[in-house]
Amino acid sequence: MSGNPSLVLQKVNEITFEDLAVPKIEAPTDVIVEVKKTGICGSDIHYYAEGKIGSFELKKPMVLGHESSGVVHQVGDGVKHLKVGDRVAIEPGVPSRYSDAYKSGKYEIDPDMCFAATPSSDPNVPNPPGTLCKYFKSPEDFLYKLPDNVSLELGAMVEPLSVGVHGIRLANLSFGENVIVFGAGPVGLLTASAAKLFGAFNIMVVDVFDEKLQLAKEIGAANYTFNSKTGDVKDLIEAFDGIRPDIVLECTGAPPCIKMAVQAVRDGGRVVQIGNASGDVSFPIVEFSNRELTLHGSFRYGFGDYPTSIKILEKNYGSGKDKIQIDFEKLITNVFPWRDAIKAYDTVREGKGTVKCIIDGPE
Amino acid sequence: MSGNPSLVLQKVNEITFEDLAVPKIEAPTDVIVEVKKTGICGSDIHYYAEGKIGSFELKKPMVLGHESSGVVHQVGDGVKHLKVGDRVAIEPGVPSRYSDAYKSGKYEIDPDMCFAATPSSDPNVPNPPGTLCKYFKSPEDFLYKLPDNVSLELGAMVEPLSVGVHGIRLANLSFGENVIVFGAGPVGLLTASAAKLFGAFNIMVVDVFDEKLQLAKEIGAANYTFNSKTGDVKDLIEAFDGIRPDIVLECTGAPPCIKMAVQAVRDGGRVVQIGNASGDVSFPIVEFSNRELTLHGSFRYGFGDYPTSIKILEKNYGSGKDKIQIDFEKLITNVFPWRDAIKAYDTVREGKGTVKCIIDGPE
Amino acid sequence: MSGNPSLVLQKVNEITFEDLAVPKIEAPTDVIVEVKKTGICGSDIHYYAEGKIGSFELKKPMVLGHESSGVVHQVGDGVKHLKVGDRVAIEPGVPSRYSDAYKSGKYEIDPDMCFAATPSSDPNVPNPPGTLCKYFKSPEDFLYKLPDNVSLELGAMVEPLSVGVHGIRLANLSFGENVIVFGAGPVGLLTASAAKLFGAFNIMVVDVFDEKLQLAKEIGAANYTFNSKTGDVKDLIEAFDGIRPDIVLECTGAPPCIKMAVQAVRDGGRVVQIGNASGDVSFPIVEFSNRELTLHGSFRYGFGDYPTSIKILEKNYGSGKDKIQIDFEKLITNVFPWRDAIKAYDTVREGKGTVKCIIDGPE
Amino acid sequence: MSGNPSLVLQKVNEITFEDLAVPKIEAPTDVIVEVKKTGICGSDIHYYAEGKIGSFELKKPMVLGHESSGVVHQVGDGVKHLKVGDRVAIEPGVPSRYSDAYKSGKYEIDPDMCFAATPSSDPNVPNPPGTLCKYFKSPEDFLYKLPDNVSLELGAMVEPLSVGVHGIRLANLSFGENVIVFGAGPVGLLTASAAKLFGAFNIMVVDVFDEKLQLAKEIGAANYTFNSKTGDVKDLIEAFDGIRPDIVLECTGAPPCIKMAVQAVRDGGRVVQIGNASGDVSFPIVEFSNRELTLHGSFRYGFGDYPTSIKILEKNYGSGKDKIQIDFEKLITNVFPWRDAIKAYDTVREGKGTVKCIIDGPE
Repeated sequence: MSGNPSLVLQKVNEITFEDLAVPKIEAPTDVIVEVKKTGICGSDIHYYAEGKIGSFELKKPMVLGHESSGVVHQVGDGVKHLKVGDRVAIEPGVPSRYSDAYKSGKYEIDPDMCFAATPSSDPNVPNPPGTLCKYFKSPEDFLYKLPDNVSLELGAMVEPLSVGVHGIRLANLSFGENVIVFGAGPVGLLTASAAKLFGAFNIMVVDVFDEKLQLAKEIGAANYTFNSKTGDVKDLIEAFDGIRPDIVLECTGAPPCIKMAVQAVRDGGRVVQIGNASGDVSFPIVEFSNRELTLHGSFRYGFGDYPTSIKILEKNYGSGKDKIQIDFEKLITNVFPWRDAIKAYDTVREGKGTVKCIIDGPE
Repeated sequence: MSGNPSLVLQKVNEITFEDLAVPKIEAPTDVIVEVKKTGICGSDIHYYAEGKIGSFELKKPMVLGHESSGVVHQVGDGVKHLKVGDRVAIEPGVPSRYSDAYKSGKYEIDPDMCFAATPSSDPNVPNPPGTLCKYFKSPEDFLYKLPDNVSLELGAMVEPLSVGVHGIRLANLSFGENVIVFGAGPVGLLTASAAKLFGAFNIMVVDVFDEKLQLAKEIGAANYTFNSKTGDVKDLIEAFDGIRPDIVLECTGAPPCIKMAVQAVRDGGRVVQIGNASGDVSFPIVEFSNRELTLHGSFRYGFGDYPTSIKILEKNYGSGKDKIQIDFEKLITNVFPWRDAIKAYDTVREGKGTVKCIIDGPE
Repeated sequence: MSGNPSLVLQKVNEITFEDLAVPKIEAPTDVIVEVKKTGICGSDIHYYAEGKIGSFELKKPMVLGHESSGVVHQVGDGVKHLKVGDRVAIEPGVPSRYSDAYKSGKYEIDPDMCFAATPSSDPNVPNPPGTLCKYFKSPEDFLYKLPDNVSLELGAMVEPLSVGVHGIRLANLSFGENVIVFGAGPVGLLTASAAKLFGAFNIMVVDVFDEKLQLAKEIGAANYTFNSKTGDVKDLIEAFDGIRPDIVLECTGAPPCIKMAVQAVRDGGRVVQIGNASGDVSFPIVEFSNRELTLHGSFRYGFGDYPTSIKILEKNYGSGKDKIQIDFEKLITNVFPWRDAIKAYDTVREGKGTVKCIIDGPE
Repeated sequence: MSGNPSLVLQKVNEITFEDLAVPKIEAPTDVIVEVKKTGICGSDIHYYAEGKIGSFELKKPMVLGHESSGVVHQVGDGVKHLKVGDRVAIEPGVPSRYSDAYKSGKYEIDPDMCFAATPSSDPNVPNPPGTLCKYFKSPEDFLYKLPDNVSLELGAMVEPLSVGVHGIRLANLSFGENVIVFGAGPVGLLTASAAKLFGAFNIMVVDVFDEKLQLAKEIGAANYTFNSKTGDVKDLIEAFDGIRPDIVLECTGAPPCIKMAVQAVRDGGRVVQIGNASGDVSFPIVEFSNRELTLHGSFRYGFGDYPTSIKILEKNYGSGKDKIQIDFEKLITNVFPWRDAIKAYDTVREGKGTVKCIIDGPE
């Protein structure tokens, strides 16, 4: 039987509403969440418009969505830390519990990861369902209770925020370090915001659109910006008052940015590749070696990243002397009701000035 | 010739004013600083009252003081980054430039360290002069320019603040971690304050005096406090809302605190011993091993700590959305003119409710 | 039904042979191992003679044994890497798959660890069965295939060897470092041996029995030894040709050794507490802080330790230029047939000159 | 006055013998070494044949040589650890004692490094003299005493060996890890050899010349080899028995090797770029990010590398159970007397089957 309204990407360019089966509690740690808020991610748009991202290719229908928050609807017998009614952020990728990656504290690189709304590489394995549905099933330990001062809308931002947190933790960013973030899209802005709460001293955001750079300053994520259309790395450093950053967080995947990231960072500094590139890039390896740089590849998020992201939001909206530093809510530029979910996808696809677009869960 | 008014500890219980020789530029990187503000440290009081600390023993007269800021008075030919008139914090210990400790990035453990106002262990080597004088000589790279929004009074706090920063960096404290600080004296309060700017999520300060705990909250350094007279580690954790801290920063050196520090920290957590103990302590090694804890010994400060401390002050008094988090100025409870310097020492020695006592440099 | 001969500690001082039920494959990843060789551990003797170790207390009968190797007897449907007949070492502690400890790569501190032959703290939970039986059940991923050149006897040594490997990895021992190991019992000798294969440059073993020190040299685990009855830390360093070690691996738990470990290590060095102490110890915290030492608590073993231990044995018995460095087999001083298993325990209990005593599995 | 026979690169293609001034002790820590053995480095050949390497360009005559050992000839007043007659390896680059790079333990990236036989970038600063002369001056702490079992020829190999050691330490190679080394020239072979003493479990060396690969096996540096002309990364992994290495040490700088290095390493693995590339390379950044790899740029060598290299040689030629693992001496394929020094350069330049070519110091 049905009862689970869902948004399904049938194939390239075709999204439909479907009523699918309600998931059932099977394992004792299973939880059913009623999804309330879901953000649209750039990767969703790639599947919608091109049917693939890199080696991930859509070959059969797939429920969309992986940036969601919701309310606990039902819990299995063995669930200890959640109860019906709890507001939660959903971590959408569940790894194998037996892999070396998981056991060693790096589950993000588990090859057997089951990730919501990501096409299965095995044609015999159904695509893991996305979160754009009424009822979504997850093991208890991949759901994270939201503090009272964090709204469900912000809860849907925990996923992209965790992408930034993961890269920042790979770089081991510590108080007082200077940071450049390439990219002022949602991930870039959230990464810069997270860097600020991690104690970054000066933060420059780089992009090619002045209005996005303006937003980076307005929300409090950057005290410097640079439009990379207007100059090369020398100009960039000059615009940063001569500071060579300790860390560069590259959130674009664009070849010229990756190159500039390496050129900009200080001798002995760290570059984290967070953004998805679309193919091989020209890489300044001579400079990279001679200046003893380190490059970290960063993929999604792993152990501890969701809790840290939630703490960022909780801290940011704290009381007393812990005042708001970042205006995260300004990043939510569009909210669509469920019935307009396809329109929401089209809006993001057309790139109409949105930063983060949220779809309300089905009523 | 003389011309350099100085405060000299002649022997136990005897401090005098002396007019000593003005130091001369010898090396090209030498700088003469006119000292403006000097804090009194607990260790000074030990020498004053007992003539020794641990194995360091006063055997001949010694100029006091090592927590100072001042203004650049004269610079050597090779000085590049400072000019006459610059306001600076003075790092009072200069290591050998050739030691393995220095070369490996850990100069704080250089056995040939020359540290202001610390008795020389070699009777043939004069005691390194302290900073409580009009003119103090230092190599350029152990002087740090103060930002415009950091006063000379706060500049004199950079030294004890760096003690806390050093311990925090040994613990590799990162955003979101929960921290307990034992001790609400100057070092404890500054350590808790630094922990906050490093991104500590919840901070509990522990002491045996309620008024000190009150101050920890008032200045914004702690959101939890615990009077360790009122209970054991179980009570402490309960008072911390059941949180076992990721990190404990032990700033007292008191045997019961060291034990409680180990008992309180979470499984796999880190304890940093910052406070000076006065002898061997009873240590819960069984629990320490079975819960895979790590203990870091922390001694003074090293590479990067002074710059980080200055950034803490600069950030704290930043503008716009970077609002004041910590009221550092409230920690400066007494300021004495130079002529009352001996009285200042007696005040601290008597423990009359002061937190940090500052002596103005000779006019 | 029965069919599983087992060695049961009924209560203090009473061990009996029992015929218990043969375990059954339940989960798809379950494997039944026919146990072939089991070493006796000091902790077994504590339970036998005193009924407890620290907070672990025997309250009901328990199958003994946790240092075992065997041959795969039966495999579940989902087992991928093992087949009937494979020779394996058994890792005897299986953590919860959902704990933060496990997820973060530190399963050794999982509070829900189910560890063979360790009394359950919950009176309603049966004691996890030990390995001294004919058929032992384990999930596939806690069994490790033995290379052809590693015998089943050596396979039973993987457990105590992993205790040393774990401590060495906590210390991050790298080629060229000088190491002191306190204790020349089985764990101390295996730890020193592992340190050698990790690239330790000079290795000193310290004990109070000359014949044990002699053995440390004979098997090739140490190039220096010191009888700690014959002097203090000054004598120890002198005996080490003036070398202060980078790392001390403390495998005794004896209070004077823990103190000497701290005193001996070089400034900035690391001490790892591997041995089980029996209570609080007097700890030289002043020296510990002033010389910026680090102390790591080490508990059992965790991710990667068993594979590393097996590689040590495989490498050690390698061919060609990779010649034998350590004579591990010399550590196996006694082998008892199954029918003499109780006699084996009594022999170890009486401390009759054995290093490692092995019991053959039931035929 | 003269008395210091030296080998001078006058300009591209022109090397001459000159008699230059004997250096004088100036600082108390100065030491004059009589140079005995000098290896020829690929970089020397670049200056000889092209007048430059990357941004380093020869603009005036320069004494060649930077891979040398010798005997102490004269010592300054303050020299503590060396005496006339001591056999030493010479570390040819001396950093500024005041730079942040040096202070922080990373002197290899000091921009003010004074490196033997490397053209000065400032036209007003003379080129730092090379070591191909009779008398070479160095501060005491950049000279390292050779153990009795390490010959002066091997002492001249400490420099290139340190290049490998540095990369290995950046990768934090630990016992049991599998390693691939790209390049079977002197640096590649020495790097693989060092990896073995650091405890690498399986080592594959990759090159395009079968005879070099043969040598890698003969000297005991590799247990696997692969000729990269014969296949792609899939073939390489197959030739490594399906092992994906934990670490790849790239010692060629060749674009296809750098790409293959990234493709070959295991998920979450580390790649170290040791070889000098000649320009930007095509880099597989998508795979790099998605598999969370780390890339370390490695430049020359730094604190602790020379001592570690010397320990490798000392250990390798140790006695008793510490038998020879690597036949380093086989790498010294040509030894030329001083009078044939130019011929030595021409031999290496022509690539006539030499591995490492040594020039005897002037008599």
